[in-house]
This record gives sequence, C-alpha cells and structure tokens, in this order.
Amino acid sequence: MNKSYERFQPPKRVLLGPGPSPVDDRVLSAMAAPVLGHLDPLFLQCMDDVQALLRYVFETENRVTVPISATGSAGMEAALVNIIEPGDEVVVCINGVFGERMRDIIERAGGTPIVVEAKWGEAIDPRKIESALKSSKPRALSLVHAETSTGVLQDLSGLGEMAHECGALLIVDAVTSLAGHPVGVDRNGIDICYSGTQKCIGAPPGLSPITFNERALDRIRSRKSKVQSWYLDITMVERYWGDDRTYHHTAPISMNYALREALRLIHEEGLEARWARHELNHRALVAGVEAMGMSMAVAPEQRLWSLNAVSVPEGVDDAKVRGRLLEENIEIGGGLGPLKGRIWRIGLMGSGSTRENVRLVLDALHRALNAEGFECPTGVEAAEAVYEN
Amino acid sequence: MNKSYERFQPPKRVLLGPGPSPVDDRVLSAMAAPVLGHLDPLFLQCMDDVQALLRYVFETENRVTVPISATGSAGMEAALVNIIEPGDEVVVCINGVFGERMRDIIERAGGTPIVVEAKWGEAIDPRKIESALKSSKPRALSLVHAETSTGVLQDLSGLGEMAHECGALLIVDAVTSLAGHPVGVDRNGIDICYSGTQKCIGAPPGLSPITFNERALDRIRSRKSKVQSWYLDITMVERYWGDDRTYHHTAPISMNYALREALRLIHEEGLEARWARHELNHRALVAGVEAMGMSMAVAPEQRLWSLNAVSVPEGVDDAKVRGRLLEENIEIGGGLGPLKGRIWRIGLMGSGSTRENVRLVLDALHRALNAEGFECPTGVEAAEAVYEN
Repeated sequence: MNKSYERFQPPKRVLLGPGPSPVDDRVLSAMAAPVLGHLDPLFLQCMDDVQALLRYVFETENRVTVPISATGSAGMEAALVNIIEPGDEVVVCINGVFGERMRDIIERAGGTPIVVEAKWGEAIDPRKIESALKSSKPRALSLVHAETSTGVLQDLSGLGEMAHECGALLIVDAVTSLAGHPVGVDRNGIDICYSGTQKCIGAPPGLSPITFNERALDRIRSRKSKVQSWYLDITMVERYWGDDRTYHHTAPISMNYALREALRLIHEEGLEARWARHELNHRALVAGVEAMGMSMAVAPEQRLWSLNAVSVPEGVDDAKVRGRLLEENIEIGGGLGPLKGRIWRIGLMGSGSTRENVRLVLDALHRALNAEGFECPTGVEAAEAVYEN
Repeated sequence: MNKSYERFQPPKRVLLGPGPSPVDDRVLSAMAAPVLGHLDPLFLQCMDDVQALLRYVFETENRVTVPISATGSAGMEAALVNIIEPGDEVVVCINGVFGERMRDIIERAGGTPIVVEAKWGEAIDPRKIESALKSSKPRALSLVHAETSTGVLQDLSGLGEMAHECGALLIVDAVTSLAGHPVGVDRNGIDICYSGTQKCIGAPPGLSPITFNERALDRIRSRKSKVQSWYLDITMVERYWGDDRTYHHTAPISMNYALREALRLIHEEGLEARWARHELNHRALVAGVEAMGMSMAVAPEQRLWSLNAVSVPEGVDDAKVRGRLLEENIEIGGGLGPLKGRIWRIGLMGSGSTRENVRLVLDALHRALNAEGFECPTGVEAAEAVYEN
C-alpha cells in the first residue's frame, strides 16, 4: 500500500441542513480531552452528569435515561425492539422516511404494524390514530414528533392518554425536536422517547439519548423472550449506567464528553429560552423565504422550528442551488423520497439557530436563485423585521 | 434544576487496562476538527480513506470493509445477525466473556449454538472444533481471536479450511488483536472479521471496523428473511459506504475523523513494525513480571501481546493494588467472571505499547505490591534486559 495519506483538514461549513448541526467550539474541545477508562470513577461521574442533564432536557424524572452508544436510528431500534415480541401489534404513524423506518424495524422484530398514514408533508390526524388504536390490540403507538424528511411537527397533546386507554405504550421519536421544541416526556405521557445528539442538542452524531418510564420498564420485565438485540437490550444497558456499574460494552468516552458539554450549554441557556430562540429564528426565516416569493412546504401550524421545508420554485434546479451554497461553505438539505428535488430542508438547530445564520442563508439563497435564473428580491430585510418587532 | 455543572477536565491517565488504550494527541485533535455533513463530498473522501486504510489493517481486499457506527460489541452482533436465520446452527468457541456473548447473541437471533469450550485462560483445541463442525450442519464457526477477558490468543491457522469444508463461514472477533497481532483476514480464510477502535488501533471507543468477503455476502444475499437488526443490516450499511452513497443513518463524523487519523498512524508505522513493537513490549513485561516473582496466567504460546494476564499473588488484594496504581494515574484491569480477583489484565495496546510504559507499570506495581505486604524485587531491570538483547 504505497499511497500516502495527508492529514484530513475539513473546512468550517455552516451546517444548515437536516443535521448534523453546527457544533460549538466548547463541545469540540471537550471531545479532545484525555480518554478515561469506561469504569474509571471519574468517568462514572461524567455519566451521572450526562444522565441528570438528559432528564432535564427530556423533561422527565425517569431513572432510565441514558445515551445509547450509537446514532439516533439505533435509538429508534432500541425503543421498538425492547418492547416488541413476535406477534405484537404496533400502531405506527407514517408521513415520511422515519415513520417508514419504524415500520421496517417493527416487522424485523416480528411485530405487526398497524399503519396510520398522512401525505408526506402533513401531520397525522389524531382521529385516525384513535380509530387504529381501538381497532387493534396494540402493544404501542409509535410516531415521529419531528419528521426530519419533511419538516412536519406532530402535536403530541392527548396522544399519551389515547394510547394508555388502549393499553398501548407511547413511543416518540424526538430526534429533530429535543432541545429545540418542547417535548415534555412526563407531561405528555410519553413512555419511551429517543433523540440524536447531532440536531438541536448540538453535539456531533454518535449517540442516541433515550428514556424509558416505569410503565415501559414493566412491559420489558414481563417479556416472555429476550430482547432480540444484545447491544440495545436496555435491561443490560441500564445496569452499566445505573448503580450496579456492571460492564456491558465500552462506552464511547469522547462522545460522552461532547454530549455532556453540549447539555451543559443547554442548561446554561435554559430550555425555555432555547425553544424561544428556535421559534424566533424560524419565524424570521419564513418571513424571508416568503418575501423572496417562495413558499413553505408545510402548513403554518405544523412547521418545525428546527427544520424548515421550503418548496423549490418551479423550474429551479434543486441540486445546482445547493451546490452554489456549498461553494460558500453553507450546507442545506434536499428532499427525500417523493419530495426529492421538490423541497429544501433548512436546519436552524442548536448553535446553528442564530440571526446571523438566517441572514447568511437568505442572502446566499437570493444570489444562488438569481444566478440560476429565478429572479427574486432579497429576503433579508423581511427577516430582520421579525427581530425588530 | 438548580445544580450547576463545571467543565469536565479529566486527568491524563496512562491507560494500561483492557481498553480503551491511550489515544495519540494527533487522534484527539483530529476529533476536534469542524464537523461536516454526512453526505458532504469532503466527508465521502474521508470515508473512502477510512475504508482503504481498514483494508490494509485487516489485510484484505474485501470491498465491504467499513466501521459500524457503534462499539465493538455491535460489531459482534452485526457479524452474527447478518448471517443467522432462525434455526441455523453455529459452532461457537467459548473460553471467556466474549465467547459467552457470542452464544447469547446467536440465541437472540434464533440460532442454535453448538458450543466448544475450554477453561477460561486456555485456548480452544482445534480438534474439538473440527468434531463440532462435523457433527452439525453449521452455518458458521464463530470464535474470538484475542479473548479480552483472559488474555488468550487463539491460533487461527487451518480454521478457515476446516470451516469451509463443512460449509460454514468463519467469523473472527479481532477486537483486541487487530493492529497489534497479525490477523490476516484473506490469508486465514476469515469470512467476517470485526474489531473495535479503542484497542490496538488507538482511537477512542465508538466504532467497530468490520469486513465481509464475497462468501459471506453470498450467504446474506440468499437469506429468506430480512436481517433482524435494521441498524446493523450490512446490505444497507454498505450502500451508504459504497458507490451508491444512499443515506442510511448519520455517520458519527468526528469518530470517523479520529479513526482515519489512528489508521494513518498505523500506516505510517507499518503493520509489521507495529506487530513487532507489540511483541517486544509484551516480552519485556513478562520478563519483569516473572523477575518480581509473579507468574503469567496464560501458557507462553497462547499469550496475547496486547493484553497480559498476570496472576494476582496469593494473599494480595487485587482491588487495592489497582487503586494504588490509579492514584498514580495508571489504569490496569482486573479479572472478570471466574477470574475476578485472580488476575490483572495489563494492556500494552496501540500507542500505549512502549518501553516507557512497561517500565512505568512494573515500577508502580513493585511499589504497590510492597506497600500491600507482598515483598518482591523490582522487575524493571529484567524488562530492560529484553530491549538490550
């Protein structure tokens, strides 16, 4: 092997896509701290802090609140496979990529998905959820709070009661909402909730925070068979994170340093202030986008603050515009599946949700669109006006 | 939540336990580089380099050679669940914690383990493996090359042919050997091999390098059912790492930077030189340990170079000695399961395998043992003599 390899020196992109989001320098430098052993008493303290701070961010008192040692999709798999046994029915809401992924995981676990659908780009009608719950014997109701593929927010109010009345657990994917939108695990009766580190939490990708309440743990304790995944079996994972400190697998030490520092930033800012910041910057972006003569792809009351789906104007080449932005070191996302080529996904997440970035992306989009032949005014002033009011 | 959280500032431990191993400053600072998007063309280049360098370290031409986005135990699960379907027999060799873990995963995947055992601390007799293979219809032969719980090396020669003659795939756990001992994936007819980043590779924990050859992929393509794990389904993982670049999950960007830099260090040193370094430091440590009047827990020809199992002398409190070392910022490991309190596991892995660390740990052990009432001479001179010859 004669090829030689240079040091990899990535440029500093402004990450305004569907995630990863920009990572604060404090978090990056936390990752470069010396590595400790995974049973070192000092690392165990770090783990305790991570758990306490995650409870704050999830708004929960749940004892079992830990980062799964893999990315958000593994959190989804952990949430589902810990409770599903072969033959179990699960009501699953599908209006984008991540609902589809849930269905796939349910089937792989031997479960039977009872599907409630909405068009990609629209929220699920709760009346449809209720009738699906009542027409089956569901082990769980599983849905995505913030559908990353479409920018749609699902209102959670009432769903916990609805599920519990039918004997089902409520499982919520909060990958793109946690720490950017209120999730309120305990308040909303969510039994299992998971997220990723690389969205509104503002750490690099690599861990999946997850929380299980006692109702969910009771269900797991009453399983007849072992959880199909050894790695994601929460009863073993929690013995390492809990008082036992029983070795399970080697925790990703440096990623936990990063997560702790990102959570510390959230704690310093305050959850409510952070939500308000995400909402304000979202509103400014929308004002700018609309002033440019474009339209949002999602109805106003269903829009995520963290991820903004903008319709690609007729005749504009989605990929060319994104390419122009990337040349300026700005990343935004394209659409997936049926929305490929039809939407841009502009993320304003974590430390990336700033007035400066709203201005930056609107200005760059304005120049790129005009260069691609779509003549439009700037959206910057309309966005700025939102901050002035 | 009124508690305040300070910045976490871990001390610089000398990590001479069973892993994580010491991480070179170049690797730590690579992790702190700006995060890129997981589909950014520049990150795709980083991925290509990681794959090419992993092929070098595994000594393979296998196209499908990638880091699983989770720790080594997830690599074990990926290796097994991708090929096992319910009812499949798998010959599994058990002489420590990680063989036991394989059995557990095989059972969770619906497979039937055909167990070949040896005492903890001893290698498996290949004649027993052969007879187990011949007395069943095995889908695979699964074994641990370097048993981290005991410090035992399993000789791989002949096992590939033996497995293939019986129609079985050879699956090898090289978590604690890869980049410290020769593994020789292609040479040894290994069909699936996995490792971890935090041992001889010298990166922090968080990823699990894995490689599948065409024989293994053929088996996967002929499955009747989907792989039970969505996250670990290699046919989907490889579409992201291969030419398709199809989104699967968000790769842990910063951990891949770290892995690339750690692999670059291996490439600069050269695999053969790295193996020789691990062997030499191991020999020096053994000489020192024996000069102190202690004995190694594993027979000479079965000893790992990367992880040295030392018998705790009669009457010495294992934990107290380790506690004294940790006060000096030196971490060594204790025993697990039946070896708890009976062995120390001294890792000399990756950048931790140095003459300086051999001297350091022998000197610290000497002082700790004498302080605990076990009078013994120093082992440092005996170790130094090994380097002088």
